[in-house]
Amino acid sequence: MENKILLTEQEIPRYFYNIMADMPNKPMPPLHPATREPITPELLEPLFPKDLILQEVSSERYIEIPGEVRRIYAKWRPAPLFRAKGLEKMLDTPAKIYYKYEGVSPAGSHKPNTAVAQAFYNKIAGTKKITTETGAGQWGTALAYACQAFGMECEVYMVRASYDHKPYRKVMMNAFDAQVYPSPSDRTEFGRKVLKENPESTGSLGIAISEAIERASLEPDTHYALGSVLNHVLLHQTIIGQETIVQMEKAGDMPDMIVAPFGGGSNFAGIVFPFLRMNLAENMNIRCIAVEPTSCPKLTRGEFRYDFGDTAGKTPLLPMYTLGHDFIPSPIHAGGLRYHGAGVLVSQLLKDGLIEAVAERQDQCFKAGLDFIKAEGIIPAPEATHAISTVIREALRCKEEGRSQTILFNLCGHGHFDMSAYDAYLSGNIKDAEVRDEQISASMAGTDMFQPA
Amino acid sequence: MENKILLTEQEIPRYFYNIMADMPNKPMPPLHPATREPITPELLEPLFPKDLILQEVSSERYIEIPGEVRRIYAKWRPAPLFRAKGLEKMLDTPAKIYYKYEGVSPAGSHKPNTAVAQAFYNKIAGTKKITTETGAGQWGTALAYACQAFGMECEVYMVRASYDHKPYRKVMMNAFDAQVYPSPSDRTEFGRKVLKENPESTGSLGIAISEAIERASLEPDTHYALGSVLNHVLLHQTIIGQETIVQMEKAGDMPDMIVAPFGGGSNFAGIVFPFLRMNLAENMNIRCIAVEPTSCPKLTRGEFRYDFGDTAGKTPLLPMYTLGHDFIPSPIHAGGLRYHGAGVLVSQLLKDGLIEAVAERQDQCFKAGLDFIKAEGIIPAPEATHAISTVIREALRCKEEGRSQTILFNLCGHGHFDMSAYDAYLSGNIKDAEVRDEQISASMAGTDMFQPA
Repeated sequence: MENKILLTEQEIPRYFYNIMADMPNKPMPPLHPATREPITPELLEPLFPKDLILQEVSSERYIEIPGEVRRIYAKWRPAPLFRAKGLEKMLDTPAKIYYKYEGVSPAGSHKPNTAVAQAFYNKIAGTKKITTETGAGQWGTALAYACQAFGMECEVYMVRASYDHKPYRKVMMNAFDAQVYPSPSDRTEFGRKVLKENPESTGSLGIAISEAIERASLEPDTHYALGSVLNHVLLHQTIIGQETIVQMEKAGDMPDMIVAPFGGGSNFAGIVFPFLRMNLAENMNIRCIAVEPTSCPKLTRGEFRYDFGDTAGKTPLLPMYTLGHDFIPSPIHAGGLRYHGAGVLVSQLLKDGLIEAVAERQDQCFKAGLDFIKAEGIIPAPEATHAISTVIREALRCKEEGRSQTILFNLCGHGHFDMSAYDAYLSGNIKDAEVRDEQISASMAGTDMFQPA
Repeated sequence: MENKILLTEQEIPRYFYNIMADMPNKPMPPLHPATREPITPELLEPLFPKDLILQEVSSERYIEIPGEVRRIYAKWRPAPLFRAKGLEKMLDTPAKIYYKYEGVSPAGSHKPNTAVAQAFYNKIAGTKKITTETGAGQWGTALAYACQAFGMECEVYMVRASYDHKPYRKVMMNAFDAQVYPSPSDRTEFGRKVLKENPESTGSLGIAISEAIERASLEPDTHYALGSVLNHVLLHQTIIGQETIVQMEKAGDMPDMIVAPFGGGSNFAGIVFPFLRMNLAENMNIRCIAVEPTSCPKLTRGEFRYDFGDTAGKTPLLPMYTLGHDFIPSPIHAGGLRYHGAGVLVSQLLKDGLIEAVAERQDQCFKAGLDFIKAEGIIPAPEATHAISTVIREALRCKEEGRSQTILFNLCGHGHFDMSAYDAYLSGNIKDAEVRDEQISASMAGTDMFQPA
């Protein structure tokens, strides 16, 4: 069999798959932070265009992908599915390992899948500018690309620490015509407040979100976009899994387990949900494993609570696995996995035992990443190395048990902008950042969270 | 029609195409620097394995690609051919623009095409280690990858200026297990000599070549490898053009002109030679345009001479277009194009009027590169922007003339490790480095060069 299974542009999915339709227990509603009553869709209109709000609450199984969105996807999609022959050989395992490679996109990750869709729905709603936050810059790059493709402005609040130390993602956003500001900035009331308290603040994702939301609320024809967590974001990513099903069928194979890194959930949901539908609707039994870093273990050590999506506590309360919105993860290199909570859909599925979660140590992940580089010749993003670490463990288990299982994982992006992280590992400067129980209890002690009834 | 034309792994070419067989005038022989007599193949044996020496002098039209080499190519090849719909739209041109994208390889450029072949022939010859030089690191990365794939050691002498200022390519080579030393180093007699004269030397490609050759001559079971210029290197790259012919046929089109950046010639030869065969053997009339930087204009302002391949004057004398081996190009960002001479095969073809050459200004190239990023969503390597600049000019000419010509170019690599160059351009810190006539006359005044009879 071949190394890669490629599809034609005609095989780009025509529908987003909405798992809400097939979940045995629907997720509980988001609540208004003041009234603790379910929020109405209208409340979101200052931030998002109507089509996206409808998708956020939809229970339709399939939502048609607009032709214009598919035309842009076709620049790089369908993404290739690789058989990891080199890794199988290196591990001497009877397991068969496949990976879907999302690093072929303009931003180098899966993020443009939703950025393009969000930009499209904004464009037809008359939006002129979209604001967002970004950490290391993956999401900001994706949105910058998408906005430029539709002729809209893009304003990115980039966490100051990354802005100063990882300048190349900023350059990439500039190349796509986006305005990038270090956050905290003096462009917002909230930013000025933070700077007044601490002029040397290096910022956080929470602060950047608050700034992006504030600007979107103030400026005319301006909306806000989020790169993960929300239902409509996860929805858009399901094209990954849909393509992969067709590719696995062409390979004459089907996964026994699927592994994906987990930050807010969009990467995991993207590859897993279409397969999970087979579990739910066709009685298949594919293991779906979300991999988080041990330094931000909301799925494996957090609790299911109503909690805020942001640090400032301005968003609706969401029913999710969380470490508490005050939890500050240590600065691991996999910036995309440093989020205190898990998306609502994935949280409900985990609660219902329909998916699994494991946590991986940062040092183990980089070791796995380097093995992968040597075996497959592709440099994985630090986020993706989390999946690889779990895949290697499962493949070695297969070897021990003499079982030829089929393992699929999502190689969500390349690590070309993360070489300083590999440099740190190769120089012996990567440690794990284990979280102490007291740290979690402290951040979970906030009185503004509560267990769902 | 689709955005991309993909081929299956079965369609990877089975033969390297050797243009020597079809050239109306064969190139003149390399000469021994002392005797000025044609050198014998044996003279090259301390540096290269026999199979590569045979390829260097072969006039066989087709040389079979070993199965093991094709199996490694299949990890990323065939490389996609894209229709540049976004760029056509941006330029509002009736021209049809296609590009072959070599950035999908493990090193992110076309360089692994020959690195893998060279590593294979070394492996079967019993080589245990290969030494080489690298500037910014593209070639070093490719050879590191290839050596690792065949279980050989790789020792890279990296120009000190790049080693210090562009560390990420070094990390990538380390990830592929290569040993990387800043050049000049204290590991060679020549390096120590240079350091003694100037302890602060930031090195040059010429010095690094001398160091790599010295180590290869000294150590047992150790050979040397070069990433361009030589006939066998150009030969290996012809898989690019062969794939592209099949893809153009699938697109139902054929180029009126082919454009490729020009450093030593391997990238240009790779895409052009198989099409040039159509000109030579089938009376086609495809324009083949080599694009060099105005700061290193050997094809457009150099002279056809017997000259050395390296700065130290240790290699055989080669009949080629050159600016003189003492010529020091200004430090433009397209490091791969900073070479004083042109490969022998390409020089002869230019002399015979079978190909064309143009020079592009660095600032124009970055402007073209940014247009391409916006139009196509791919960040081109600085080398590749030279082709893009010419393509845009030709496409605009088509528009002016109202002609729908078909333009093909080689997008030889991505620019993910060159973002500092884009940053410099976006910050207004890129200038062109025009070469003065006196500068060329000075470097051409060396008495150790001479015009062929």
